Amino acid sequence: MLILMEQTATLEQIRAVMAVLEGAGIRGYVQESPVSTSILAPHASQALKADRIEPMGGVGRVVPITSPFKLASADGAPGRTVVEVRGVAVGAPELAVMAGPCGVESREQLFTVARYVAESGVRLLRAGAFKPRTSPYAFQGMGAEALRLLEEVRREFDLGIVTEATEVETFEEVERTADLVQLGARNMQNFALLKRAGRSEKPVLLKRGPAATLEEWLFAAEYIMSEGNRNVILCERGIRTWSQYARNTLDVSVIPAAKLLTHLPVIADPSHAAGRRDLVIPCARAAVAAGADGLIVETHCKPDQALSDGPQALLPSDFFQMLEQARRIRTVLMEAGPGAL
Amino acid sequence: MLILMEQTATLEQIRAVMAVLEGAGIRGYVQESPVSTSILAPHASQALKADRIEPMGGVGRVVPITSPFKLASADGAPGRTVVEVRGVAVGAPELAVMAGPCGVESREQLFTVARYVAESGVRLLRAGAFKPRTSPYAFQGMGAEALRLLEEVRREFDLGIVTEATEVETFEEVERTADLVQLGARNMQNFALLKRAGRSEKPVLLKRGPAATLEEWLFAAEYIMSEGNRNVILCERGIRTWSQYARNTLDVSVIPAAKLLTHLPVIADPSHAAGRRDLVIPCARAAVAAGADGLIVETHCKPDQALSDGPQALLPSDFFQMLEQARRIRTVLMEAGPGAL
Amino acid sequence: MLILMEQTATLEQIRAVMAVLEGAGIRGYVQESPVSTSILAPHASQALKADRIEPMGGVGRVVPITSPFKLASADGAPGRTVVEVRGVAVGAPELAVMAGPCGVESREQLFTVARYVAESGVRLLRAGAFKPRTSPYAFQGMGAEALRLLEEVRREFDLGIVTEATEVETFEEVERTADLVQLGARNMQNFALLKRAGRSEKPVLLKRGPAATLEEWLFAAEYIMSEGNRNVILCERGIRTWSQYARNTLDVSVIPAAKLLTHLPVIADPSHAAGRRDLVIPCARAAVAAGADGLIVETHCKPDQALSDGPQALLPSDFFQMLEQARRIRTVLMEAGPGAL
Amino acid sequence: MLILMEQTATLEQIRAVMAVLEGAGIRGYVQESPVSTSILAPHASQALKADRIEPMGGVGRVVPITSPFKLASADGAPGRTVVEVRGVAVGAPELAVMAGPCGVESREQLFTVARYVAESGVRLLRAGAFKPRTSPYAFQGMGAEALRLLEEVRREFDLGIVTEATEVETFEEVERTADLVQLGARNMQNFALLKRAGRSEKPVLLKRGPAATLEEWLFAAEYIMSEGNRNVILCERGIRTWSQYARNTLDVSVIPAAKLLTHLPVIADPSHAAGRRDLVIPCARAAVAAGADGLIVETHCKPDQALSDGPQALLPSDFFQMLEQARRIRTVLMEAGPGAL
Repeated sequence: MLILMEQTATLEQIRAVMAVLEGAGIRGYVQESPVSTSILAPHASQALKADRIEPMGGVGRVVPITSPFKLASADGAPGRTVVEVRGVAVGAPELAVMAGPCGVESREQLFTVARYVAESGVRLLRAGAFKPRTSPYAFQGMGAEALRLLEEVRREFDLGIVTEATEVETFEEVERTADLVQLGARNMQNFALLKRAGRSEKPVLLKRGPAATLEEWLFAAEYIMSEGNRNVILCERGIRTWSQYARNTLDVSVIPAAKLLTHLPVIADPSHAAGRRDLVIPCARAAVAAGADGLIVETHCKPDQALSDGPQALLPSDFFQMLEQARRIRTVLMEAGPGAL
Repeated sequence: MLILMEQTATLEQIRAVMAVLEGAGIRGYVQESPVSTSILAPHASQALKADRIEPMGGVGRVVPITSPFKLASADGAPGRTVVEVRGVAVGAPELAVMAGPCGVESREQLFTVARYVAESGVRLLRAGAFKPRTSPYAFQGMGAEALRLLEEVRREFDLGIVTEATEVETFEEVERTADLVQLGARNMQNFALLKRAGRSEKPVLLKRGPAATLEEWLFAAEYIMSEGNRNVILCERGIRTWSQYARNTLDVSVIPAAKLLTHLPVIADPSHAAGRRDLVIPCARAAVAAGADGLIVETHCKPDQALSDGPQALLPSDFFQMLEQARRIRTVLMEAGPGAL
Repeated sequence: MLILMEQTATLEQIRAVMAVLEGAGIRGYVQESPVSTSILAPHASQALKADRIEPMGGVGRVVPITSPFKLASADGAPGRTVVEVRGVAVGAPELAVMAGPCGVESREQLFTVARYVAESGVRLLRAGAFKPRTSPYAFQGMGAEALRLLEEVRREFDLGIVTEATEVETFEEVERTADLVQLGARNMQNFALLKRAGRSEKPVLLKRGPAATLEEWLFAAEYIMSEGNRNVILCERGIRTWSQYARNTLDVSVIPAAKLLTHLPVIADPSHAAGRRDLVIPCARAAVAAGADGLIVETHCKPDQALSDGPQALLPSDFFQMLEQARRIRTVLMEAGPGAL
Repeated sequence: MLILMEQTATLEQIRAVMAVLEGAGIRGYVQESPVSTSILAPHASQALKADRIEPMGGVGRVVPITSPFKLASADGAPGRTVVEVRGVAVGAPELAVMAGPCGVESREQLFTVARYVAESGVRLLRAGAFKPRTSPYAFQGMGAEALRLLEEVRREFDLGIVTEATEVETFEEVERTADLVQLGARNMQNFALLKRAGRSEKPVLLKRGPAATLEEWLFAAEYIMSEGNRNVILCERGIRTWSQYARNTLDVSVIPAAKLLTHLPVIADPSHAAGRRDLVIPCARAAVAAGADGLIVETHCKPDQALSDGPQALLPSDFFQMLEQARRIRTVLMEAGPGAL
């Protein structure tokens, strides 16, 4: 259940409600926002009736959470969640963009890309230090050395770092450097990794698996959240279908669907969806038009020399174009009123 | 091959080239545009070398058509095709919108919807007279009676009529009333119907089959075009995948892909893609953002009383909203320059 | 409803029941089998209560048909249907095999293949006269000339002919020659063609569309049956998925599922499912093991010279092997008892 | 490259070849079989020409490995691999069966099922101690307590234990108990877990991911093998498609395809493929008919009380039937000659 406290509720009244929950063996989460306080008690309904809570002092209303995703559910929060990543608000009206190369390949490559990313006004840099690859013989990332370079580039250009954690073993290392820890599509149901991310203090970017239903994706978010980390950003990155011209099929309608069912921000990765440069910009525009709160996109100074995913990396000039068009479409949605976002 | 004539080419020079083609047993099509004339000879390359044509008077350049879709291929035309439907230019910069109920159900229903469609500034009305239905026991459309009502509604509101031909037998009847003959997704490889449409003088709207590859879709267009009808509009309407929240998966990236490979206009049907009202507007916006030249959308005055597809029909107020947002996104693309359309 | 008459029911009692149905405006079908008679009244339940019929003389039991497929439903028949094709019982315990080239290409090709097919003990020859092809520029079949050759080959080798009708226009021509009229996967929802087949006196082989759900497939059968033709054989031929090594994905579990939901025989086409010779035999075995009542398979004397689908045609020696293995697997199922078939 | 030694090759000659490889910085694996010895040098071709090795004493032939799966490739071994699991040969002509409940739920449940599994002649018991579940709120397995029970049941009934390792953290614990360590479908690209399994001395059962291509699956095997563990068994368990009557679509043709491309044994899991009891036996038969070397199947004494996957568990009587039918189909294949397996 979600217990919405009155605006005038006192700290003591909140504590009293928490005490009742505790007495019934139920975990409660106090959620504060500028305008109101609520208490989320994900699995309370069976152990405790609403009419035990409703008459208590300071309690406004008690709302049952019917969704199986107790923590991620739109029912479970009084409004949409905004996740802060080093000063960038993901889930706010302004489009949040993360851009950079697929992987860190060298100091020169990283700094070249970071420079034009920073110049574009984008404030979050994406780049992999550890790369999960289909083949054991493919480039697996520069690892710890890449993390060191990412810290350097952050200082140099004042960029937040988005980078992927691929396993529990190296999670701590990645977490130390990352401003936003990315969990990749192939790890969407790596439950040990999800739980580890749930114990992190850094926000988490959760990519949808290439064959994950909306429900499975939200349950994956629930795994993270049920360990305590409430700062989860969902990311649609294309699904595997028989349609073959693009590498994956960008599932645009899952973006508004995920926003209907949860209170979490939802962004999109048009690069992995398209898999080829000439389709990345249209996919980016489509995702934003569908309501995505942000984009994570691959760009490279010399895509033909990239060690991974070169064919889908945008050239700098394409990247600037994409950015301009995506932002203008976001503005159309913002001006259309709250229902459109 | 595509033979691009010089701007100064005379009629006699054009005739001379046609004569050479004819002499080699090759069919040629003269394509005139305000700025230039070209001759398309779809299967000439095997029978005739380019160097037999290139030195001829008035010939600018000879371009081989490497695509297997000789007539639909982007190689086979000097620019993008614009299809005129009762004064509406589909494939032009301005967004072309077709809207109306799934099927004609009564005079009252049709006129009520037509009235607010016309008031919105949309000039093409969609409505089925013959409805292909999964079950033989479901409402199959009002048939000839519906066609009569559509003619009446055209006169009353000055709207162009978009309606579906479901079989060769009734094609002529439909063709007489329609300003744009729609071929449905399930008929995309009904080759007899495609060929019949190819002999029509009315433009044709070709929906992509729910499991058709891009290549199969373009070959279906080729079936129509090879019978002589060059006025084909492609329509993406969602594909069948395992992703289940929406009814179908709108394949946004196929829109720019089809525009890369062909010279034909491409529109989208967000209603069948989404299958549920709350996802239609985001899908419509996404399709336009991906580069769709137009939309065909279902709207109904009383969706809960619709005899078919009620759950996906937009209410009038939603329809106006969608229209406004879609047009503004189209403007963003127009202002971004020709590469974006 | 399905009205099961007692074994001792008289003709008059049957007529009396039919008269009641007629009086209520309901169409009834008398179904006779060696052991009992039943009356199928597909849409009776709304107009007529079972307790109006049950007390009548000679009536055993009245069973409601809850399935939306009134005529195809397992509820709608007292046992499994066996379709006779020129003396071959499809749906009987013995495996029914149809084999031959994809298309008729010449008298020599057809007779060579027919000879070894006949020698193998197979009594039904498949070969297309009209070929539906993705591209308008591909070989479309020899048409009427092929039908003439098929009649000749039937006389020469005493083989039943299985050949495809691709459109209403040429249906009658095909029907005259065919012992079993095949409707192809791409035409599974060509409703005009289904209805035409429903008015035929020849049995019909209905292939599942490459993206058709089980429900849509059974509704397609219902279209045929609701026009009067009860002799429908269902054929699974592989579905379109993202899995790419084989051309299509043979959906083995749909075979027992279709047999659970309907009383119709179900066969499989391993050639189109596999799309490559080295996978056809395993697919054929798998389909039979899943419970398929028969197989329709492509074999060619010179696959590398075939005008269509050469890569999936079995060589004569492979064909004999497949036949032997498939028959032995069918025997395992027969010996395992009725539940296995 | 694969270096096939002559039958008469001496140990010294083998050492000499290994020394040359080492000198070129190449890792070599000596593969001994009853009839011959070979040396696999997965990535030798770039650093070393075959004509440097071929003239050496005792060397028969040098075969290049063109496949990107160097260790899993059929090119990389002189014959098919047989993996021994506690005395059961997986990949041998006789069908290898693993059966048991989805998860260990209690001592009583485990022992009841183990008893009838043992009585059926099956010698490998499957049962999960750690259960990866879509929802964090679902039963996650009995963990360490279940492992203790599995050791007890092994002693009691002389059964080999097949159980799943879900994460690196608990791998060692599972590995200690398991005779065959299962890696689940959702972990197929959990590369850290694959590498950990590659350092295990226990054989590994690698399930195909629900949306994994054949290539991705074989690369996952390659991850395991490249860490040293050569005892990998592949398991097809159904893929995710839009076809909905069964839970997943059993991809039967991937079974012969995987056997063409690799030397590894391939088994199938009809329970997860079907997802419903009435389709499990047909799917089991189909998999064996397609060439599966074994089955892993769920059976439960009281499926309606199972804590996970009850609807797909076979009742004891169904299980015996399935076993009998599957073994008889395997016999048909064995008798059809080596090409059929």
